[in-house]
Amino acid sequence: MSSGGSDSGDFGVRAGEVTVELPAQPDAGLYFIGRLRTPWTTRAQCPKNGRDSDAVCTVELDPPFRPALEGLEGTTHLWLLYWMDHAPRNLVVQVPRQYGRGRGTFALRSPARPNAIALSAVEVLGIGEGTLSVRGLDCLDGTPLLDIKPYFASTDCYPTAVVGWHRSKTE
Amino acid sequence: MSSGGSDSGDFGVRAGEVTVELPAQPDAGLYFIGRLRTPWTTRAQCPKNGRDSDAVCTVELDPPFRPALEGLEGTTHLWLLYWMDHAPRNLVVQVPRQYGRGRGTFALRSPARPNAIALSAVEVLGIGEGTLSVRGLDCLDGTPLLDIKPYFASTDCYPTAVVGWHRSKTE
Repeated sequence: MSSGGSDSGDFGVRAGEVTVELPAQPDAGLYFIGRLRTPWTTRAQCPKNGRDSDAVCTVELDPPFRPALEGLEGTTHLWLLYWMDHAPRNLVVQVPRQYGRGRGTFALRSPARPNAIALSAVEVLGIGEGTLSVRGLDCLDGTPLLDIKPYFASTDCYPTAVVGWHRSKTE
Repeated sequence: MSSGGSDSGDFGVRAGEVTVELPAQPDAGLYFIGRLRTPWTTRAQCPKNGRDSDAVCTVELDPPFRPALEGLEGTTHLWLLYWMDHAPRNLVVQVPRQYGRGRGTFALRSPARPNAIALSAVEVLGIGEGTLSVRGLDCLDGTPLLDIKPYFASTDCYPTAVVGWHRSKTE
């Protein structure tokens, strides 16, 4: 484990950040099953989170996986899991620019994490031939898709959930 | 693509199910960052979903990733992402035993999917030295952990979300 200092700016690690050496070999493999089409081609253009934007985005599934959309009619919300292929994976403590202090990776929704899987709940606007129109994404155009799951309010919705550091920031 | 028939029982594919040939090589690699400790050692013992059980389970992080828990104090709910290492990955249409008809994999929360990533919202009961006590899991003891994310009600909670086939089943 090593800590970022003022001399580590070349490596993109900020003061207060902590990195780890990742395992030499992966334990399991992922298949990219499609792509997310969004209006954003640079990170600066992306909304801070998907609920900040009304943009209609498109999920494009690769042909072999299109039959797996069967039975989605009448479903209003989905989870999309996708791969943050530009994010570093070795940060365990990071300093988000907007907060200015170090926090553990597992206390953050930052794309930088050991397994760079992002998770967004999206509203379903339409179902096409191997495509979905959705609202609620925040990622770069061309982001690789990993999975689609139905959103069950009975197991996925916790309206009173609190994120400790976020509450104290806004009080 | 091939469809399961009465002669395919040896391969665990039921009548009405559809499989695909998976890519020869993965597109990205996952690291197992810890294990989930639960009371269940066979699939039959596992609760149908995590909210059906009061069992207290333990998240055990591997040592390099423990500093990433910093800043979780006061956080009430987390997402756990974990790897369903016993599930087949080639089913695009499947027939869940309890429903008896074929549905697309992306309309289901079944562990069988191209990328066998499971997603559970859990209640945080305690934070230890590289461990978390949680309630709301439904998986086998020893399941590999992939990620931990804070649950933000502002982006993750959709109380009115509807799963089409599930609504018509219960009406």
